[in-house]
Amino acid sequence: MEAFSDGVLAIIITIMVLEFKVPEGHDWHSLIELSPKVLSYIFSFIYIGIYWNNHHHLLHMVRTMNGRLMWLNLILLFWLSLIPFTTAWMGESQFAPTPMALYGIILLLAAISYRLLQLAIISQHSGDSAFVKSMGRDWKVKISPVLYLLAILTAYVGPWVSGFFYVLVAAIWVVPEKRIEHILRSE
Amino acid sequence: MEAFSDGVLAIIITIMVLEFKVPEGHDWHSLIELSPKVLSYIFSFIYIGIYWNNHHHLLHMVRTMNGRLMWLNLILLFWLSLIPFTTAWMGESQFAPTPMALYGIILLLAAISYRLLQLAIISQHSGDSAFVKSMGRDWKVKISPVLYLLAILTAYVGPWVSGFFYVLVAAIWVVPEKRIEHILRSE
Amino acid sequence: MEAFSDGVLAIIITIMVLEFKVPEGHDWHSLIELSPKVLSYIFSFIYIGIYWNNHHHLLHMVRTMNGRLMWLNLILLFWLSLIPFTTAWMGESQFAPTPMALYGIILLLAAISYRLLQLAIISQHSGDSAFVKSMGRDWKVKISPVLYLLAILTAYVGPWVSGFFYVLVAAIWVVPEKRIEHILRSE
Amino acid sequence: MEAFSDGVLAIIITIMVLEFKVPEGHDWHSLIELSPKVLSYIFSFIYIGIYWNNHHHLLHMVRTMNGRLMWLNLILLFWLSLIPFTTAWMGESQFAPTPMALYGIILLLAAISYRLLQLAIISQHSGDSAFVKSMGRDWKVKISPVLYLLAILTAYVGPWVSGFFYVLVAAIWVVPEKRIEHILRSE
Repeated sequence: MEAFSDGVLAIIITIMVLEFKVPEGHDWHSLIELSPKVLSYIFSFIYIGIYWNNHHHLLHMVRTMNGRLMWLNLILLFWLSLIPFTTAWMGESQFAPTPMALYGIILLLAAISYRLLQLAIISQHSGDSAFVKSMGRDWKVKISPVLYLLAILTAYVGPWVSGFFYVLVAAIWVVPEKRIEHILRSE
Repeated sequence: MEAFSDGVLAIIITIMVLEFKVPEGHDWHSLIELSPKVLSYIFSFIYIGIYWNNHHHLLHMVRTMNGRLMWLNLILLFWLSLIPFTTAWMGESQFAPTPMALYGIILLLAAISYRLLQLAIISQHSGDSAFVKSMGRDWKVKISPVLYLLAILTAYVGPWVSGFFYVLVAAIWVVPEKRIEHILRSE
Repeated sequence: MEAFSDGVLAIIITIMVLEFKVPEGHDWHSLIELSPKVLSYIFSFIYIGIYWNNHHHLLHMVRTMNGRLMWLNLILLFWLSLIPFTTAWMGESQFAPTPMALYGIILLLAAISYRLLQLAIISQHSGDSAFVKSMGRDWKVKISPVLYLLAILTAYVGPWVSGFFYVLVAAIWVVPEKRIEHILRSE
Repeated sequence: MEAFSDGVLAIIITIMVLEFKVPEGHDWHSLIELSPKVLSYIFSFIYIGIYWNNHHHLLHMVRTMNGRLMWLNLILLFWLSLIPFTTAWMGESQFAPTPMALYGIILLLAAISYRLLQLAIISQHSGDSAFVKSMGRDWKVKISPVLYLLAILTAYVGPWVSGFFYVLVAAIWVVPEKRIEHILRSE
């Protein structure tokens, strides 16, 4: 299951580049016109990178593979497979409200699928209370859907407001946890 | 053989997304126009997901790899590799009769190839009668071609009739067997 | 090296399908217009299938990996990576002479690269004379370049003459050796 | 991490071929018009081949995987994922100055990312001074960024000057080290 998922994620991350159509001009100016596409690509690259990393760790905790886990995993991959499309739309529309909202909807649905997969795997470790605790209190997994929801709701307020929440989700996943804990404590 | 097959399936499932051309408009309406494509993508995603899962289990039962098995496997992958095309045609034509019939033809040929591969693997276990029995009576593998045939024949009657059979095949594979057995028994 | 090569071959075999542009019509007639493309796809699918199978076995005989083997392998993958392009050109031109000749040139260069890789691996087994003999007398590897050359030279005579040699190469690789030996003996 | 990286590299190397649009003509002349694209493809194929080979060896030296290594690896893959785009632009513009400079910029950023990944892995072996030495004095990794910088700066002088440096980088990586040492010594 891991090899297949890794393959799908590797393809998703790479086919997004196919959206960068070769510009007609041969100067820096024609390259700058691509910048909204590049920016949205960077975002999605980071998101897929985060998923790949966490998904990897999650699958290692699977005790016995079964049909339910397999389908929960496929549902997660389904939502992730739509990211190249929403990324391209967001970039091409230069961060128009609807594409930005759709981006959040897809990410929200992926996050919910991830949580369901995680809960199904946690339930396999019901005897190991320490494990259940550590997984159960995964605050990043819990807070991300809330931030995606805020990004969706503010998409029509302005791209910068919505974009702020997308940056925030990426940041809490990319920045190592210890540093975040330190920041939270010092506040 | 498994790594190669997994790779091919992962690519098939992901390149289907390349069919979602970025809409020119930036509103929900232009997204709704994509819905036939999305719907046909969902179908094919589920079908490839089913194949990936079953194919995976099937290859684990191979005792000795040989040229015959390898070619039977490649023939199966050949038919599956045509799914992105038929999916795109079905979506773009908004479920016109001919694309819907072709979709069933490709799925039927894939199902027959799968059965041939399965029979070739069963023949390697000729001594183990319990195994042969359990594999031989794989009712899902036997009934699917019949349902595909019905979907093909009814494609010109109406998309809903034909579509019903496609949903039915997906359902009997996705829904866990025990539940189905329970339903059948209670009837 | 095997995982990377398998990945490249899996992608090559699958991206060829992207050439099947969805037809504008929704009837069988518009599908029939695709038939030259489908036919050339079938050919290339078989060729890549043959390479995948043989390449797989060949890499298992590698004793120590080194830079030379790695580059010989990459050169082979380079020629194979051009197959989707030549396949598409051959199909789109409805088997015009030049695309058919180019198809043979790419296959010839791939075959030569394969032979060089094979010879480099054989040289690692110089002590094992039985192995060297069995690999050295690999008549299929030796005769294929000759047949490709004939296909190239006859491309301007007519597509059927050239096509005959392409079918012949595919046939001698696909048909199990024992059967061929039997045919040759009975003649 | 290796399987995912291998997958991404395999896809990058293969999707570059999708840039070879089937020519409208069916003669050798229309093929020759593709030559700038083919030439830039050959370059990128070699570069990705070099990265794949070195990256492979590098990852084998990882002692304990952690978030930092994972993100350094993803940053490297990010720059490499932009190679198909710059390759296509360079080919389509027939080696115009700006695309050639961009090609170098992407390669330079990839080279810097590779060095950072290498240094992070070296720091895991701080006790093993022999290892640190052998990795630390990796002159190819150190000289490549300088040559890329020269290629970028000379892109506006002329394609041949800039191209010379790209060939030079490829050459020092492809030609086995012993031969280079021999050449350097004999000078």
